[in-house]
Amino acid sequence: MLSFGDRLAAAVAERESQVVLGLDPDPARLLPQASRAAGEGTAAERAARAVVAHCRALIDAAAPACVGTKLQLACFERLGAPGWQAAQDVGRAARAAGLLFIADGKRGDVPHTTIAYAQALLAGTETPWGKVAGLGADAVTANPMLGRDALEPLVEAARVAGAGVFVLVRTSNPGAGELQDADSGGAPWHELLARLVDDLGTGGTGPLADVGAVVGATQPELVARLRERMPRAPFLLPGIGAQGGSVDELRAAFAPGRGGALVTAARSLVEPALDAGDARAAAEAAERLRDQAWKLSS
Amino acid sequence: MLSFGDRLAAAVAERESQVVLGLDPDPARLLPQASRAAGEGTAAERAARAVVAHCRALIDAAAPACVGTKLQLACFERLGAPGWQAAQDVGRAARAAGLLFIADGKRGDVPHTTIAYAQALLAGTETPWGKVAGLGADAVTANPMLGRDALEPLVEAARVAGAGVFVLVRTSNPGAGELQDADSGGAPWHELLARLVDDLGTGGTGPLADVGAVVGATQPELVARLRERMPRAPFLLPGIGAQGGSVDELRAAFAPGRGGALVTAARSLVEPALDAGDARAAAEAAERLRDQAWKLSS
Repeated sequence: MLSFGDRLAAAVAERESQVVLGLDPDPARLLPQASRAAGEGTAAERAARAVVAHCRALIDAAAPACVGTKLQLACFERLGAPGWQAAQDVGRAARAAGLLFIADGKRGDVPHTTIAYAQALLAGTETPWGKVAGLGADAVTANPMLGRDALEPLVEAARVAGAGVFVLVRTSNPGAGELQDADSGGAPWHELLARLVDDLGTGGTGPLADVGAVVGATQPELVARLRERMPRAPFLLPGIGAQGGSVDELRAAFAPGRGGALVTAARSLVEPALDAGDARAAAEAAERLRDQAWKLSS
Repeated sequence: MLSFGDRLAAAVAERESQVVLGLDPDPARLLPQASRAAGEGTAAERAARAVVAHCRALIDAAAPACVGTKLQLACFERLGAPGWQAAQDVGRAARAAGLLFIADGKRGDVPHTTIAYAQALLAGTETPWGKVAGLGADAVTANPMLGRDALEPLVEAARVAGAGVFVLVRTSNPGAGELQDADSGGAPWHELLARLVDDLGTGGTGPLADVGAVVGATQPELVARLRERMPRAPFLLPGIGAQGGSVDELRAAFAPGRGGALVTAARSLVEPALDAGDARAAAEAAERLRDQAWKLSS
């Protein structure tokens, strides 16, 4: 079993891309063919079917420019049981298209419960009636606030599956600083998180560990400082485009190599497709982002 | 529309209980009648049906001693789409039994995504195919690490629905202190969370606000200090029983009145029922806990 760090480096090299297509589908704003795919049934069933068609169209169009896709679980959960099934279907479609599937749920709970989240998102659950499949994600996002003992069961479950965990270290929302930058013994609180990430990760044969960090892309100097603190952690960089982050300022993130950072973009890729009514516009936006990041990381 | 604080105070007064039945069902360890209810279908469908029967039996038996039930969403998510449906069914059964339904998912995300979580857990989602119902919880748990702007949309959505938000302030797991107690300008970091909770909550006509705090019950002196910092916040106290907390040391939590704290117990109520193969053993354990807490809060 290859470690996630090695898998990630290989995937980036093979696809010559660090772009992650962020999917946070809004049932009120889908591609035209998606609405036509809604079919019959309850509102939840129709919306979920439309969401799957929307996401599949985006994946089919944009996959050649991407290395992964990130599903925002909240947007699937809000469609109830059919929505959870939709997440499973879209995850499967992403993997079939050769993309890494990142389940973005930012889960975090006490150790006993973390095991249940790991079963839900990764390898599944043994029951007296047979095994129930999990989402089968290649990586998940996690909230570290509950501490090391609460993260460890997730990291261990991911490691067994060759999957990765991206731990929130410094998020990109405007209010993130109030708590995450609070002075803690002369350094911002989030540096405690960076140390934890650096500690928890295990390397493969290459330069990347299997525990990564979510670092908002809106503050380049922060990215550079956190790269020093976590030299081996793959970075997941949200906030490109719609949230104001620019790729050109993120060179430091790629210090461990081309797989050192994944550039996540959702609205900045999907909105052009919605405006044009054509998924190919997302592919074009993804190609531009791919070129930017690839040149930067050379 | 009554505010959550007023609804909570009224429910505690009416039911003469502060006990919350924690449900974190393990499909490998269910009541005997639950396994018989599994029926036919996929492993996920059978396990989910059994989980519903298990939870319903516990609710039916223990409801008279309780004021609410708390569903650990991880344990439902791990059964896929049927598991999400099971959470909906169990939540409905809890409300039919007169219990407050607390959805324990500890969600936390950027503001845009928090809205989607609020739709999933509370009032539902408008779609072009009609409204998709949410879980319809009376209260949810939330992770505050992303900051005030990330919590606000959840608090606002809950307020509109007369529901509450219990924000993690200091959790009960052994490793919680490393990050949550980090010195932040002379006070532990979690006091920043306490201030945020106190700020975000709005009162009704009574003494309780609609934003509460999750405070681990394993350190009584901590509960007392946090009660001073958050005089109006309802406390959700996990860690009673299995995690080592004792009710007798939690008097301070009830300072705002009998509805000032909810005492959550999962394993310490459910294990006796599993050992006896009879849900009535959970009812007996819940009655004992109800008496302890009720006397303490007089």
